[in-house]
Amino acid sequence: MSRLSNILRPKSIAVIGASRKEGSLGRMFLEAVLRMNYKGKIYPINPKAEDINGIKVYPDLDSLPEKPDMAVILLAHKFVLQSAEILGKAGIKDVIVISAGFKEVGGEGIAREKELIALGKKYGMNLLGPNCMGIFNTAPEFSFNGTFSPTLPKPGHTAYISQSGALAVAVLELNAETDLGFSIFVSTGNKADITDNDALEFLLEDDNTKVVTLYLESIDQPAGFGEICRKLSAVKPVLAVKAGRTASGLKAASSHTGALANPDHLADAFLRQNGVLRIDTLQELFDTARALEMQPLPGGPGVAVVTNAGGPGILASDAVENAGLKLASFQQKTIEALESFLPAEAASGNPVDMIASANHETYTKAMEIVLEDENVDAVLLIIVQPPVNTTAGKIINEMKSVVQKSGKTIIPVIMAQKNEKAGLDIFKELKLPVYSYPESAVKVLGRMYQYSRIQQQMKQSAKERPIVQTAAAIPPGAGGQAKAADLFELLKSYKIAATPYIISRDADEITGFQKELNSKIVLKTANEEIIHKSDEGLLKLHLDTEAAVRAAYAEIEQSLKQKLPAGIQPLFLAQQQMNPGPELVIGGKRDPQFGPVVMAGFGGIFIEVLKDVIFRFAPLSEKEALMMLDELRSQALFAGFRGQPAVDKEAFAKTIHKFSILLAEHEEIVEMDLNPLIWSAEKQEAVVVDLRATIG
Amino acid sequence: MSRLSNILRPKSIAVIGASRKEGSLGRMFLEAVLRMNYKGKIYPINPKAEDINGIKVYPDLDSLPEKPDMAVILLAHKFVLQSAEILGKAGIKDVIVISAGFKEVGGEGIAREKELIALGKKYGMNLLGPNCMGIFNTAPEFSFNGTFSPTLPKPGHTAYISQSGALAVAVLELNAETDLGFSIFVSTGNKADITDNDALEFLLEDDNTKVVTLYLESIDQPAGFGEICRKLSAVKPVLAVKAGRTASGLKAASSHTGALANPDHLADAFLRQNGVLRIDTLQELFDTARALEMQPLPGGPGVAVVTNAGGPGILASDAVENAGLKLASFQQKTIEALESFLPAEAASGNPVDMIASANHETYTKAMEIVLEDENVDAVLLIIVQPPVNTTAGKIINEMKSVVQKSGKTIIPVIMAQKNEKAGLDIFKELKLPVYSYPESAVKVLGRMYQYSRIQQQMKQSAKERPIVQTAAAIPPGAGGQAKAADLFELLKSYKIAATPYIISRDADEITGFQKELNSKIVLKTANEEIIHKSDEGLLKLHLDTEAAVRAAYAEIEQSLKQKLPAGIQPLFLAQQQMNPGPELVIGGKRDPQFGPVVMAGFGGIFIEVLKDVIFRFAPLSEKEALMMLDELRSQALFAGFRGQPAVDKEAFAKTIHKFSILLAEHEEIVEMDLNPLIWSAEKQEAVVVDLRATIG
Repeated sequence: MSRLSNILRPKSIAVIGASRKEGSLGRMFLEAVLRMNYKGKIYPINPKAEDINGIKVYPDLDSLPEKPDMAVILLAHKFVLQSAEILGKAGIKDVIVISAGFKEVGGEGIAREKELIALGKKYGMNLLGPNCMGIFNTAPEFSFNGTFSPTLPKPGHTAYISQSGALAVAVLELNAETDLGFSIFVSTGNKADITDNDALEFLLEDDNTKVVTLYLESIDQPAGFGEICRKLSAVKPVLAVKAGRTASGLKAASSHTGALANPDHLADAFLRQNGVLRIDTLQELFDTARALEMQPLPGGPGVAVVTNAGGPGILASDAVENAGLKLASFQQKTIEALESFLPAEAASGNPVDMIASANHETYTKAMEIVLEDENVDAVLLIIVQPPVNTTAGKIINEMKSVVQKSGKTIIPVIMAQKNEKAGLDIFKELKLPVYSYPESAVKVLGRMYQYSRIQQQMKQSAKERPIVQTAAAIPPGAGGQAKAADLFELLKSYKIAATPYIISRDADEITGFQKELNSKIVLKTANEEIIHKSDEGLLKLHLDTEAAVRAAYAEIEQSLKQKLPAGIQPLFLAQQQMNPGPELVIGGKRDPQFGPVVMAGFGGIFIEVLKDVIFRFAPLSEKEALMMLDELRSQALFAGFRGQPAVDKEAFAKTIHKFSILLAEHEEIVEMDLNPLIWSAEKQEAVVVDLRATIG
Repeated sequence: MSRLSNILRPKSIAVIGASRKEGSLGRMFLEAVLRMNYKGKIYPINPKAEDINGIKVYPDLDSLPEKPDMAVILLAHKFVLQSAEILGKAGIKDVIVISAGFKEVGGEGIAREKELIALGKKYGMNLLGPNCMGIFNTAPEFSFNGTFSPTLPKPGHTAYISQSGALAVAVLELNAETDLGFSIFVSTGNKADITDNDALEFLLEDDNTKVVTLYLESIDQPAGFGEICRKLSAVKPVLAVKAGRTASGLKAASSHTGALANPDHLADAFLRQNGVLRIDTLQELFDTARALEMQPLPGGPGVAVVTNAGGPGILASDAVENAGLKLASFQQKTIEALESFLPAEAASGNPVDMIASANHETYTKAMEIVLEDENVDAVLLIIVQPPVNTTAGKIINEMKSVVQKSGKTIIPVIMAQKNEKAGLDIFKELKLPVYSYPESAVKVLGRMYQYSRIQQQMKQSAKERPIVQTAAAIPPGAGGQAKAADLFELLKSYKIAATPYIISRDADEITGFQKELNSKIVLKTANEEIIHKSDEGLLKLHLDTEAAVRAAYAEIEQSLKQKLPAGIQPLFLAQQQMNPGPELVIGGKRDPQFGPVVMAGFGGIFIEVLKDVIFRFAPLSEKEALMMLDELRSQALFAGFRGQPAVDKEAFAKTIHKFSILLAEHEEIVEMDLNPLIWSAEKQEAVVVDLRATIG
């Protein structure tokens, strides 16, 4: 049960502050409820009126014939608290506060909102608002329009949750003449109590909603939001326009992850990871929703284009690849069947260009043939205003039964005036969403296919979510930096491979380490007091004899004595020297909004010049980590480049997965870099060469 | 004078094949001419009719009262040649052949088209078609609709040249209810004689056309097309949708340039270089044309957003940066003036959010203030359906004089139903193009600003076009490869710097070269018979003593003796060894369609993994070469990276400029790579280290 269940499905409502006054909220609200023929009981409450628009008005709550399911408060702000108290005492648990004059006005409004929240808690209320546009539910058994929008919503199966009330009005207005219908609208206003997450919970249980659209300006409770979106997108598409792409610039930060993690990149990664399809523009949001609401999902990426004009067919084909789809290659029988009746000038391949002479019969035959092709998952049906003998209306009428018996996705593009000849009512009856341009229709089809894969991922990932436990915190060293020894131990406990190493103050021990390893080693400082560990004189490479190790030890010791604070003894890190190979950088930081962020990318220029990095939130499954690496622009490097060996992407993904659990379980880690992580061709695994962490 | 001048501006026309028959081309054509009230004289010709629709019909050309300006042939294909011959004899020079049945049907159609072309030549005709949709010119003094489109064009100032006749119908249909009007339409059909280029020539002289839109499937005569587009875009915007993005894949080629130069990348570079603004979708093409036709160009990138709802304001602001624009930062006086009358809850910064209570007076005051701000180049005027007291129509009516006296760009976004309240007629009267969504309006504004810069570039570049002469061809060496000595001489003659070098067979000469240079040298083979010159044993680095040079010489000589064909003597290239620095690759090839292509990018992974290269066509001015480098994704490398020095981008651009002239003047060069070109910090110039060329 969502906390919005009663508010969105009320059998009876009390309207506190219903009014007769022209232009008042109280009157506009009541009129909106009446205009959509609400199926429940309305109890307007106003001590000064006996009826409004022929509806009986009650002086107070006590005079009602029954306890209403839900109450809406439309009073001036100074009366709201008193009214909420009365509702609470009367045991009414579900309340919408439309009234403004709370947190959003600052000053005493903030105090007023706090009191309202306290009252809600005291009486165990579900409180929507204050300062909101209300809600609607167009399901026929409620038909409840609890907004004061001048435009009525057309009933349908798309829910719209908006952080901007005004935008909801715009959306209803702009869709008044499209074929998009709405199921649920929720304006969460100041979100004093009920949040977007509660609205999403409701949509999970609302069978009348087939598609969820969101307008987001911020993501306030990301953990809950992520969880509910994963559940929701496993059963129905969740589309979002997220505003605020050009946020106030990057915050200065000491690590790669910090510097590269701009808020919009993080929001993008967050939405993606939780199954939300981020859409660029409002228009595309609703264009996509229409198709998802009306048509079945494509079973694969194969698109057939059927047209009576070459140009739009070519434009559609061009758009197909960009949309992540492909032009289906027809079966031989399809081509033969098309050739058997199309004129010689027509093209029987894909796109099928039936030329301008195609009439309703030509279209119907072609569609029947193409829809039966095994390689076709979806058909783009393009109709340019036919010059003779037919109309879009006649064409769609003729192919009714072909469309009805096909289980495949069909997206029509009508390049003609949308007048009576266009047959829009028949398209609607057949649940075919109509577009005007081939490019936007293909984009929508691409989104549908994208969602079909998201749906599978979300169903699958529900079983694969990594489990996170709490772990003993590692202590901070000097300047908040973790000690090298602690970090290597930490890696070990998460089974993350590192180069063989020793941390020691003892030259004999280090030469012994080199001798035993029988390999070149690297010697450097392990003092966390030193930030730039690769500075002149602090890092020595290619040490392969005892003498070389001792000389390097002496030199580094000398430098350290000058650089270390008084009383701090030099400490050394000796490591086996790795052969060069593809280098990854993995980073982590705690984002104040989203929590633990993991970043991955190839080191050097790829990060520093090209900023080619991908973000995700911890914890990550191995599969999620692999999908993350799949997004790198420079991933051709995994296949080997200029003599470097090919590397096992999955091995890197495993390390990212383990690192993400480490980060999630160690809340004391503010920032951490594994930099670099080198592919060891001998060991066939990804090996950490250097690392650092800031403990907070 | 364009070859289309008479065809597009006829004072009288003969319609050969005018017909009474319902559904015939001859009848549809005549009806289309009559429906738009053609201002000239119509002479239908048909021996079997006396009048059609009340218009007098003539039995033949001889019976006409005057020699018509132009003739249109609508006959069945078998009568076309005969008819053209009669027209030619009668001295009629301007002819449109609508009739199909020529090249496009193959076989004897091809022969028929050749005969038609020959006839045209014989009589000095300007021949449009065959197999075309005709033309229209909506200028009031002609009002000539010479198409058989079922939809009449709305008069306006946007010309549309289409390689697809059917798409023209679709475009007229889809714009029937927008505020876009058309001036000229030309369907070039089979382009037997008159081409797109002639149509563009006409538009240069047609003052009634303010914006040119193109639908291109191919660019047939690129040299002429490029030249006319440069002229045209210096005075009016040229927008194109170019279909065929996903061409049939890359052709295998031996050079970088060849492998990376996919046909669509080249078309893209070609359009850009010649001032054509390539637009992604048909819808955006006409959305952009509307604004360019109606509004002045923005004088800069500074955009102000004025809105009555926060959400759309944020979405607009987000879109601004992506569109290459910026949110104007208001002058203090602007903010103060806004604050003085807006309610406390409003935002007086940019975007100006006047909240839902804003009425026509609020809007008008705010617009007046914002338009006067010096930092504002353009205003996005967003109106969400106002909840009370006003409408979009009232708002625009109130601000009429403010809009009229402003010389700045204003783009309105009406997020409301486009009914009588929206005031669309007033927007039209004020030449304000109306959009429904903020994102698409901002995109259009970005295109306008982009065009304003193109216009300047094209005006400027007309004076800066490099002059190309013919040069003596360099001869091919073995396997069509140019000889090393010839290539270095070629560089010298174009003043392109190379590393100090010597080409010799003589070990003494080479050791002498090293001694005199007093620097490390590189020794390799100069035999053009060897394709992979850096293979094992053929390249020796870091040679800094006579002994080292002699040893290297011997070793390479040994290898060469095995690899070279019998009778070919080893030849050596010795070069001063450059310090490592940023490496550019410059390539050239002759594209069969577009001619000499120049490619530039950073070497190594940037080309091989990231395919970060830019194309342009030779010859290039220095400025064009610099703009080319500005497009590289990896251009952060110019600023220096990881200890590498910062480099002078202009020096690289100079070399590209010189190379482009070399390529243009040497038509024998099929492919040529300068790879790499290294920045010499000492010499402060770009220096060619290695090069190769295939001579055809």
